[in-house]
Amino acid sequence: MGDDAAMAGLASSLNVACGFHAGDPSVARATCRAAVEHGTAIGAHVAYPDLQGFGRRRLEMAHHELVDAVIWQIGALQAIARAEGAQVSYVKPHGALYNVIARERGQAAAVAEGVATALPGAAILVLPGSVIEEEAQAAGLRPVREAFADRGYLPDGSLVPRREAGAVLHDPEQIAARVLRMVSEGVVQAVDGTPVRLGAESVCVHGDTPDAVGIARAVRGALQEAGVEIAPFTAQ
Amino acid sequence: MGDDAAMAGLASSLNVACGFHAGDPSVARATCRAAVEHGTAIGAHVAYPDLQGFGRRRLEMAHHELVDAVIWQIGALQAIARAEGAQVSYVKPHGALYNVIARERGQAAAVAEGVATALPGAAILVLPGSVIEEEAQAAGLRPVREAFADRGYLPDGSLVPRREAGAVLHDPEQIAARVLRMVSEGVVQAVDGTPVRLGAESVCVHGDTPDAVGIARAVRGALQEAGVEIAPFTAQ
Amino acid sequence: MGDDAAMAGLASSLNVACGFHAGDPSVARATCRAAVEHGTAIGAHVAYPDLQGFGRRRLEMAHHELVDAVIWQIGALQAIARAEGAQVSYVKPHGALYNVIARERGQAAAVAEGVATALPGAAILVLPGSVIEEEAQAAGLRPVREAFADRGYLPDGSLVPRREAGAVLHDPEQIAARVLRMVSEGVVQAVDGTPVRLGAESVCVHGDTPDAVGIARAVRGALQEAGVEIAPFTAQ
Amino acid sequence: MGDDAAMAGLASSLNVACGFHAGDPSVARATCRAAVEHGTAIGAHVAYPDLQGFGRRRLEMAHHELVDAVIWQIGALQAIARAEGAQVSYVKPHGALYNVIARERGQAAAVAEGVATALPGAAILVLPGSVIEEEAQAAGLRPVREAFADRGYLPDGSLVPRREAGAVLHDPEQIAARVLRMVSEGVVQAVDGTPVRLGAESVCVHGDTPDAVGIARAVRGALQEAGVEIAPFTAQ
Repeated sequence: MGDDAAMAGLASSLNVACGFHAGDPSVARATCRAAVEHGTAIGAHVAYPDLQGFGRRRLEMAHHELVDAVIWQIGALQAIARAEGAQVSYVKPHGALYNVIARERGQAAAVAEGVATALPGAAILVLPGSVIEEEAQAAGLRPVREAFADRGYLPDGSLVPRREAGAVLHDPEQIAARVLRMVSEGVVQAVDGTPVRLGAESVCVHGDTPDAVGIARAVRGALQEAGVEIAPFTAQ
Repeated sequence: MGDDAAMAGLASSLNVACGFHAGDPSVARATCRAAVEHGTAIGAHVAYPDLQGFGRRRLEMAHHELVDAVIWQIGALQAIARAEGAQVSYVKPHGALYNVIARERGQAAAVAEGVATALPGAAILVLPGSVIEEEAQAAGLRPVREAFADRGYLPDGSLVPRREAGAVLHDPEQIAARVLRMVSEGVVQAVDGTPVRLGAESVCVHGDTPDAVGIARAVRGALQEAGVEIAPFTAQ
Repeated sequence: MGDDAAMAGLASSLNVACGFHAGDPSVARATCRAAVEHGTAIGAHVAYPDLQGFGRRRLEMAHHELVDAVIWQIGALQAIARAEGAQVSYVKPHGALYNVIARERGQAAAVAEGVATALPGAAILVLPGSVIEEEAQAAGLRPVREAFADRGYLPDGSLVPRREAGAVLHDPEQIAARVLRMVSEGVVQAVDGTPVRLGAESVCVHGDTPDAVGIARAVRGALQEAGVEIAPFTAQ
Repeated sequence: MGDDAAMAGLASSLNVACGFHAGDPSVARATCRAAVEHGTAIGAHVAYPDLQGFGRRRLEMAHHELVDAVIWQIGALQAIARAEGAQVSYVKPHGALYNVIARERGQAAAVAEGVATALPGAAILVLPGSVIEEEAQAAGLRPVREAFADRGYLPDGSLVPRREAGAVLHDPEQIAARVLRMVSEGVVQAVDGTPVRLGAESVCVHGDTPDAVGIARAVRGALQEAGVEIAPFTAQ
């Protein structure tokens, strides 16, 4: 829904929707093509099957249903990426699924099993200290701790729910300064002022928020000015 | 929608729906599991994105949209098949897509390109003498001529449209005798009595018609009694 | 998915899917036409938006999302029913939604609000003693207690979950005898033998189970033989 | 997908998507609420069932399928509008459906039948001189000739296809001047310079193009400055 081509030139990795919450074959292919042009890593943005709700609502899926849904989405995107001479190199669960597997072991184990089946040993982006971090490890995956550039945090390190005040930040300069602190000190300030230790290895900038490109540009600029090297975590 | 497990024991190849006209990740996986148990080949049953119409209506897709839709569907099923230790070894276009690419070069070329991208050199089931047969050849695929056990034929070798009288046959014994003639003489009798030469290498039995299992059993029995060996065409 | 026309002649009310878990405009219209022919009442079978899961999985919808989803589904079916000179006269929540609103007040209140907005004062089928029964009453609707002909019961009056043994009964004679007892004594025997008092005013026979027509015929026959009058509850 | 609330204050009528190409119950309800606040008319933006293609691809629907799909969509939106104390007062076919019924009698008749069934006598927006204009008349509807503020025209009065150069205009001032001429002289200049007589009674401004609000504001300003009264055509 945003300017994927411009984001491809600013980000080091692109999460591509797999049709369950958004996206379709040709949108995905255009994004993969842009990723190839800019040397950007491609990730499968797997989600609950909920187009109407944009994947932002918890769905009570059986273990095997969720395992299979994850495999299916990765496979569809993988075939598209290959058509552009690329590979899906990591997985980033989307929306409600991302939040649910941060705290529920059942669904977390299903997602980890699905990813490990389709992409053995792959990287998966996780909320630091979450249940999926443990399940990913147990399934032989590489969990990568992620921070959100434009989302507010609660003192326990979880995200401020989208419907609450302070959930989403909008000012590019403020966001850039925040990301710089995440990266240099490993810390983010929660909505109540508490400093929260994240230990993030990756920083997420949403591509579908207003002025996403402006935010990504500010973040990239601040990091480069501070001498921080930006690289796909999949290249580690 | 039918008894996939029973069909897996009677057919030599199974067309598995890829979610665009029917099917979902877990239904597909169960069918792949049954295919593995019975040594049955797995084919991607690719279709127009039309769940409401069960893929039975022509959709005016742009070339790149159709190419990408075919790649996407094959990729999704391929990942599921691999999770069961199997492979997608051929492609069978479904419903309206099957009929459209039998006569329209534009969409036929798009389907051939999509299959050749996702599964280079794969077999694709085609109506004998159709445009897709030529396009598949040109794309380096192996077109396999197919006859329909339970469908009526017009004198020109095309199928009687589903809404017309004589479109679908129901009597297992009649169908079995018809298939035996298709295989031994290479001929089927059209609705007006004309003998039509098909030269079919594969015979399709629909799994979602009433008494599909009874029909498949009668066909298999008649062929075996006549000493015809039944094998997946992908093993040729 | 079953023989709607035959069921229309045996049932006194027909639940028609509204496209969210199954159904589409033309299937719905054919069912409404059959209902009109047989003088059968038409109910909106509202569900979570989950085609892939056939509406059998809990979805965490916001209050306003669920209210609006119920209104939308009733409105779509209402327009189709009117095209056949009929009316939607009651609502029957489907699958997971039916079970969730039997015990969760939040979603129950949303469903009641949606029904009361689209069909003020309408009848809504409910599990006896459920939360939705209270919420429906509070919203000015008429809750109608329902028993299931072919489903197993737990001692507390809830249904045996579909994945457990004894969830679904198949023998038409056994089912018919069971329904007769439900109607004459107001009691059903739970899976552990406990007699459960239901006080049901309506009995549900699923139209999509194998031999649905045979079951409906046996139930209708047993009731008529016992002198029980069968009428749409909407005519009360 | 655009800023519906701002558009509601600038337009005199709002086309609301009915879920087949876009939209969902709660998005539709929010738009209806905004329409009520601003006294804006509400129209059903009916489309082919094609979420993936945003309703921009021709779908070969049978007559009864298209009739029923139109009824269904109007009914769903009507129930939502009523929940906000409003009414659906006209119909605006979307995307490929709009273009197909401008020239194909079969689908045009189906759409006219569907609208006449769900909203007898209602207004329907049409391309001037199109087949649907005749069919709408024959079905007792009121066809309202429509011009597009931001779309290029061919000399025969049809729209420049979206994939071709000159299909979409972007400059608010240019668009406003163009609309003023449409309204004062009844004429628009085609891409090749030919003046085309439209006789339009309504002017469409798309709400999902970049700077849609800016365009709507410029158009409204230019018309008001020239002393043109803007009112919902449904109030005529």
